[in-house]
Amino acid sequence: MGEQLSDIGEFGLIRRLLARVPVEGEGVVAGPGDDAAVVAVGDRALVATADLLVEGRHFDRRFSSAADIGFKALTVNVSDIAAMGGRPRWALLSIGAPADEPVGSLEELYDGIAEAARASGVVVIGGDTVAADSLIVSVAVLGEPGEGGVVMRSGAHEGDLLGVTGAIGGAAAGLTLLRAAERDSDARALLERFPNLARAHRRARARIWEGMAAAASGAHAMIDVSDGLAQDVGHIAEASGTGVVLEPADVPLEPGVAEASAWGAPSALTGGDDYELAIAVAPHDLDGLREALAPTPFTVIGRFGAEQRSEMPAGWDSFRGPA
Amino acid sequence: MGEQLSDIGEFGLIRRLLARVPVEGEGVVAGPGDDAAVVAVGDRALVATADLLVEGRHFDRRFSSAADIGFKALTVNVSDIAAMGGRPRWALLSIGAPADEPVGSLEELYDGIAEAARASGVVVIGGDTVAADSLIVSVAVLGEPGEGGVVMRSGAHEGDLLGVTGAIGGAAAGLTLLRAAERDSDARALLERFPNLARAHRRARARIWEGMAAAASGAHAMIDVSDGLAQDVGHIAEASGTGVVLEPADVPLEPGVAEASAWGAPSALTGGDDYELAIAVAPHDLDGLREALAPTPFTVIGRFGAEQRSEMPAGWDSFRGPA
Repeated sequence: MGEQLSDIGEFGLIRRLLARVPVEGEGVVAGPGDDAAVVAVGDRALVATADLLVEGRHFDRRFSSAADIGFKALTVNVSDIAAMGGRPRWALLSIGAPADEPVGSLEELYDGIAEAARASGVVVIGGDTVAADSLIVSVAVLGEPGEGGVVMRSGAHEGDLLGVTGAIGGAAAGLTLLRAAERDSDARALLERFPNLARAHRRARARIWEGMAAAASGAHAMIDVSDGLAQDVGHIAEASGTGVVLEPADVPLEPGVAEASAWGAPSALTGGDDYELAIAVAPHDLDGLREALAPTPFTVIGRFGAEQRSEMPAGWDSFRGPA
Repeated sequence: MGEQLSDIGEFGLIRRLLARVPVEGEGVVAGPGDDAAVVAVGDRALVATADLLVEGRHFDRRFSSAADIGFKALTVNVSDIAAMGGRPRWALLSIGAPADEPVGSLEELYDGIAEAARASGVVVIGGDTVAADSLIVSVAVLGEPGEGGVVMRSGAHEGDLLGVTGAIGGAAAGLTLLRAAERDSDARALLERFPNLARAHRRARARIWEGMAAAASGAHAMIDVSDGLAQDVGHIAEASGTGVVLEPADVPLEPGVAEASAWGAPSALTGGDDYELAIAVAPHDLDGLREALAPTPFTVIGRFGAEQRSEMPAGWDSFRGPA
C-alpha cells in the first residue's frame, strides 16, 4: 500500500498538492495559504475563497436542518472574506444531492443560503446542481477590500498583541451536547439552559463589518478561528515568522462551554467551527481597534514575540479528525 | 412522499431554487443562466463559473485516470469562460477525497489539473481539501473578457446562422465504447482504430482562443455544447426569444462516431460532454468569423428564425440521466 491521506494530514497534503500546479502568475496578489486569495482586476483587488461541505463530515442531518446547512455553507466562505478585511459580494453555489432528495429539503437549503446571503450582502451569481450519493454544498465567494484594504495572516510583528472577537468554543460544545442529548437528559437540559450553544453550531455569524473595521484600525494580521483557536493563531505566527504566547485562561468562552466539558466537548483552544476573528495589533493601536469594534467584544489573549512558539494543542484536521 | 428531484429534473429544479435566493444586486451584469456569470469590478468585467464533478456521475475511475479527472474538472470550467468570449485566469479548487485514498492518486489528479491549467493560462489561487466518502472535484474559474467583450446566450437574431466549432459526438461515443470494451473485443478494436474517441471523453480541450476570436468577429450568441448539442442550441433560442432549425445531417461528426452507434452510443445531438462552441452569427459575418477561427473548423448546422422551435431531442439532465 502507498501512502494514504490519513498518513500525512490535511496541511501536509495541501502543501504537496499545490507544489504540482501553477500558483503564481499575472494578477495574483496572494495565492493559496491565507483565508482567501487576492487577485488584481484592473486597478482593483478582488478577494476570493471556496469551501466544500460534505454530509457526514461537516454537518450531520440529525443535528442541522437543511436551512442550517445552507446558512453555514455560505457563512464559512463569507467569514474567510471577512478575515481578509473584505466585503463579500458574489457567490457561486455548487450543490450535489441524491436523486431521491425531497425537493422541499433543497428549497430549505436554499432558504438558509438566502438568509446568510441577505445578512452578508451577498448575491448568488451562478453555480451548478448535480446528482450525487449524498449532500454536497460547495461554495465560492468573491469580495472586494473594505476601506482598510486587505489584511493577511503574515503581518504580525514581534510585540503585537493577540486578541479575539466575541467568544469561543460554542460551536464545538453545541455539537457535543447535541450528540449527547440523543440519550442523555442532562445534556438536553444544558442545551435548553444555553440555547446559544446549539445556535453557535448551527447558525454561526461571520464577523463581516468587524473584519473591515479592524483592517481600517491598524490590524496587522487576521484569521478566522474556524480550524480551532490554537491552530489558527499558530498559522498567523508561522506566516509572520514570529513566536506567539497564548494565555488559555484569558480566552473568552461562550456561556455554557465550561459546563459542556463534562460531556467531552473539546477545549475552546481546539474546538473549531467558531467564526470569530483572531487579530494581531500593536499595543498603541489597541484602544482604537477596540473602539472601532464596539459593541463586539475584543479580548487580548496573548502576545507575539521572538521566542519559539510554545507547543500548542492541535486543532481540526480534515483527514485525521480532531486531535 | 413529497416531490423528489428526479420528478422535476435539473433545469426545473434550478429555476425553483434560484427563485429563493438574491440573484440581483450591485455589480451583477449577468447572473445565473448563462455559461458563466459576469460582474463589474471597478470599471472591469469579471467572468465567473463553477462546476462540480462527483465520482460515479461525471467520471468513472475504471475509464479515466486521476489525471484525466483533474484535467476534465478544470476544462469544463474553462470552457464555460470560453463560451462567454472570456480569457480564463484564476481557479479555486475544492477537492473531497476518502481518507484511504492513496496520496499518489491525488498527486496525479493535481498533475491533470496542472496540465489543463498550463494549457489554458490558469493559475490556482486557492480552495479547500476535505475528507469525503468518494472523490469530489469542485472548481470555480474566474476570467476576464477578451477583446471582443462578453457574448451571452441571448443575443441570437432571427436570420442568424447557427454553426459549431470542431466535431461533435466523440466524448459520448468514447465513453460508450470504453464501457463496452470491458467485455467486447470489437469495441476494443474500434477504440484502437479511433483513439480520438477515448481522448474526447478523457481529455477534451476547451475552445479558449476560438471563443475570444468569435466574440471579436461578430458572434451574436455562444454556448458550449456540454449538455448535448440539441439541448444547448435550444438554450440559445430560448434565451434569445427566437426559433431555431438544426439540420442533423450537417452536424460534423468526430471520426468513429457513426461506427460507435452500433454499441448504443447516443447521437451527436444528445450525447453531451463535448466542449465545442455553438455560435449564432449573421450571414454577412460568416466568412469573417470562419477566417478568424481557422484552422479550427466552423460548420453551419442550422438557422435561427421566427418559427417555433421544432421539438428536438433532449440532452443530459443530471437528475434524470440521459434522455
